[in-house]
Amino acid sequence: MPALARRLAVARGDEPADVVVRGGRVFSAFTREWLETDVAVVDGYVAGLGEYEGAEVLDAGGRWVVPGFVDAHMHLESSKLLVDEFARLVLPLGTTTVVVDPHEIANVLGTDGVHWLLDVCGGLPLDVYFMASSCVPASAFESPRRPLLPGDLEGLLRRRRVIGLAEMMNFPGVVSGDEHELAKLALPGAEHVDGHAPGVVGRTLNAYTAAGIYSDHEASTIEEGRERLRAGMWLLIREASAARNLHALLPLVTEYGPHRIAFCTDDREPEHIAEDGHVNTMVRDTVAAGISPEDALVLATLNPATWHGLRHLGAIAPGYQADLLVLPDLESFVPETVLKRGRPVGEIERVEVPEWVKHTVRVRHVAARDFALPWDGDGRARVIGVIPDQITTEPLVEEPLVDDGHAVADPERDLAKIAVVERHLGTGRRSVGLVRGFGLRAGALASTFAHDAHNIVVVGMDDQDMARAVARLAEIGGGVVVVEDRGVRAELPLPVAGLISEARLDEVVAASRGCIEAAAKLGCTLPSPFQTMSFLALSVIPSLKITDRGLVDVDRFELVPLQA
Amino acid sequence: MPALARRLAVARGDEPADVVVRGGRVFSAFTREWLETDVAVVDGYVAGLGEYEGAEVLDAGGRWVVPGFVDAHMHLESSKLLVDEFARLVLPLGTTTVVVDPHEIANVLGTDGVHWLLDVCGGLPLDVYFMASSCVPASAFESPRRPLLPGDLEGLLRRRRVIGLAEMMNFPGVVSGDEHELAKLALPGAEHVDGHAPGVVGRTLNAYTAAGIYSDHEASTIEEGRERLRAGMWLLIREASAARNLHALLPLVTEYGPHRIAFCTDDREPEHIAEDGHVNTMVRDTVAAGISPEDALVLATLNPATWHGLRHLGAIAPGYQADLLVLPDLESFVPETVLKRGRPVGEIERVEVPEWVKHTVRVRHVAARDFALPWDGDGRARVIGVIPDQITTEPLVEEPLVDDGHAVADPERDLAKIAVVERHLGTGRRSVGLVRGFGLRAGALASTFAHDAHNIVVVGMDDQDMARAVARLAEIGGGVVVVEDRGVRAELPLPVAGLISEARLDEVVAASRGCIEAAAKLGCTLPSPFQTMSFLALSVIPSLKITDRGLVDVDRFELVPLQA
Repeated sequence: MPALARRLAVARGDEPADVVVRGGRVFSAFTREWLETDVAVVDGYVAGLGEYEGAEVLDAGGRWVVPGFVDAHMHLESSKLLVDEFARLVLPLGTTTVVVDPHEIANVLGTDGVHWLLDVCGGLPLDVYFMASSCVPASAFESPRRPLLPGDLEGLLRRRRVIGLAEMMNFPGVVSGDEHELAKLALPGAEHVDGHAPGVVGRTLNAYTAAGIYSDHEASTIEEGRERLRAGMWLLIREASAARNLHALLPLVTEYGPHRIAFCTDDREPEHIAEDGHVNTMVRDTVAAGISPEDALVLATLNPATWHGLRHLGAIAPGYQADLLVLPDLESFVPETVLKRGRPVGEIERVEVPEWVKHTVRVRHVAARDFALPWDGDGRARVIGVIPDQITTEPLVEEPLVDDGHAVADPERDLAKIAVVERHLGTGRRSVGLVRGFGLRAGALASTFAHDAHNIVVVGMDDQDMARAVARLAEIGGGVVVVEDRGVRAELPLPVAGLISEARLDEVVAASRGCIEAAAKLGCTLPSPFQTMSFLALSVIPSLKITDRGLVDVDRFELVPLQA
Repeated sequence: MPALARRLAVARGDEPADVVVRGGRVFSAFTREWLETDVAVVDGYVAGLGEYEGAEVLDAGGRWVVPGFVDAHMHLESSKLLVDEFARLVLPLGTTTVVVDPHEIANVLGTDGVHWLLDVCGGLPLDVYFMASSCVPASAFESPRRPLLPGDLEGLLRRRRVIGLAEMMNFPGVVSGDEHELAKLALPGAEHVDGHAPGVVGRTLNAYTAAGIYSDHEASTIEEGRERLRAGMWLLIREASAARNLHALLPLVTEYGPHRIAFCTDDREPEHIAEDGHVNTMVRDTVAAGISPEDALVLATLNPATWHGLRHLGAIAPGYQADLLVLPDLESFVPETVLKRGRPVGEIERVEVPEWVKHTVRVRHVAARDFALPWDGDGRARVIGVIPDQITTEPLVEEPLVDDGHAVADPERDLAKIAVVERHLGTGRRSVGLVRGFGLRAGALASTFAHDAHNIVVVGMDDQDMARAVARLAEIGGGVVVVEDRGVRAELPLPVAGLISEARLDEVVAASRGCIEAAAKLGCTLPSPFQTMSFLALSVIPSLKITDRGLVDVDRFELVPLQA
């Protein structure tokens, strides 16, 4: 019997269901109420609510049955995990669907990388939907391996499971009517497009929205959130490791109800997920903040599915995919049982990583002198001011310590050197600047995971250690490394595109902690120094950033010299 | 400058708008609040809300500015007006978009008729979106000119402005898993499909919904409405001329909020629209019933647009089409000014009707003897029991008056004859039965407007008058006619497919009233006899109906003999 005919036969009660979930209070995401009913599941879909018989019965007596969580926007690569390991991590936490922007791997491996990721995600029990990365590079100041052109995006948008255009980060380009950006928005399939508009308000926000961009996950204040809702945008509330907006924006849920608002995690570090959780933590924290469980659940289920047009997800109703969580209470939101497409999640096969996805770090020989900053001894220098737990920076101005005609690092005043080294093509292009806020006393920290172009970012108090750190990353094919006195003190290899580990979660977390501890031994005072570093080369988040092309004044959206 | 670049320039404030609507309280359909702001319009689209300058300024001081109304489901043909005249009628009432199922003309003229209607609607200021008619015929008991097969639907679904599959009326077919119906649902473009499920509840409703059908406009009780919402269906509240569900269903808006609920008019007679109004009457009556204007407006604007995926309609926000109503108050909902695509509605060009769209009534010569009912004098007969102002009927059983071996009409007991005569191909196929409830004393009433196949329905106390009425309809190319003593007492010609007039509204209303008055002179006690007649051949609405193939027991969904 064809699948749909069988589903209808089960719905009618003429055939037994595969599984009947019995005795639970079942959440209706549409009416925001609890129904005391069976759920009949066949071939991975809900056939009906009511009284049903099934080959298997799952007793949900005294528990709550809710739809699986849908993450409205995230970057798989930020977990540092291969997607099979990511699925092993988040499925038991109740995340059954994620909508990803693969722009990290796209910066490193172009469309090839995205097609590979699409292919390996196809066989997973986790549903991974893709948005085609709109901004590779994020701006003209960044150097990916190659830019994604409209033709590249067109090819991606034609693939199954690619459901739209990912966050349009070049908001200055869109707002000013840049023809290249508007061409992307005019592509077939790009009618559905996610926004990225940090700090954009007023007429500028009008222009951005008028281009057809109706979501944003960068709002961080009630006023920004309110303005976005009124402009017709969906408000995607983000709770990432380095940018947490949940508590600031929840009052809007109270004021307007949970409509056109959805949750997303954007970038979560592996430690964050392992220690706390995933989308479920946003539901938990929302309920703890006084919002009803019914409203909180909608933000994590039906709403993200609705924004993305995933009509078969986010609810428990006839014809919906049977992604069901059985919750023991409405406080912790850690599921007791997860049914994905109607079945418990079993073993997940390991993803095989082909050779070409590794071996992505190509740098020319780098020596200590490459980090020298010739300085005429006059005037002051622009300094990137790190703000703990924020991805924005302060544009500082300081008189540098000068030695022998060169500006040098100055541990006494917490002024370290920072450099970005192009690592895709081995061009040798690099730039060097100054940063405050790491608290380093010595050594160097380096990483190939650096939004969005993922060139090497290195921060150090010692030029030779900086050179050694870069060289080490080339040796291990990318990752995170801590160097002191020319010696590697800790490292986290990320050989897959220089972004992702092949190891198990616990090994990744252990190595990552090892790096943070080694950094702390060098005096580093930041709780998450590598996460902080990973945003210092991102040229679309204010205010002062650095790429391989130089210092970027993001507010003026132009390159600026070191000398202030 | 390309259109989008110009829109963005206006949004930024770098170019003046075409029109600025100033001083009004502007409705945000997203947050359900009123904003004191300008609305900047350029090239028919909203560029932004805020402070703007424009070439023209429309003073909305002290008034309310709301989005144009969107009718979620209707049949143009029921207005009996050509679409240009329909637009002249409803645009001033605030209806700026309609989503139509053209299944009346599709029954008469196949896909040719639908393509013609699509073409003539393309040039109108009214936005007319189409759903491809899923059920032509409505059931196997009806005889359209030709059935629409999946291939026909595929062609329609590929056209611009065809946005999905229209009401799937064959709910028994869907629920039972009929492969022909499931094939229609599997067509590309048919992911979006409207439902039609009168009285369907429980597991049967589960099966219908599980097939992917997520709207219904046939709910008439709170319980039915609640069940549909819980099943994931959009509840389209209908207020048609002959089926009024608004007041019964409004408590659901109070209980659950105005979410996943939208308004539709389905079938409104020309008099109804002319005398009372269109979608605006539903908003008015909703507010009068105690629902807030903000909730009522959402049901008539953003919600119908959202259900149909019309992302540029139903709200006043950047990038949305500038369909704006200026309301003097929040009670009458008759707009003072209507801006369609940013401009006042000017002259609307007359639609030219080609010859082939007329000349659709082909009947063999019909004589009085064709309405004879041979009767053996024994037993009782099934009689269609008309319920005033309802489209359902009662299945009655009566002993007929017998004369000379024939059952005959009996004015004393209000038993008239009813016949349906095939009129598309001139096959001569017809069936004759009995009906109670018209109150006729003499004469005959006939019409070519008879859902859904639009064969000729004739009701009469006199076989010769019935024959004359049918002959007259053939002469005038279809319409409505009242005959007494072989003479035509009144008529409303509907030469366009036998469904639609070419005349102006006032002429149509006058002729229609003339027919109703003439019927009353024959004793008819029904307030809208032709509207009532138009549903007596519709084989998918309970309980006893008649088509050219015989009496239909809709509950058992089979043909039944006259003899009970």
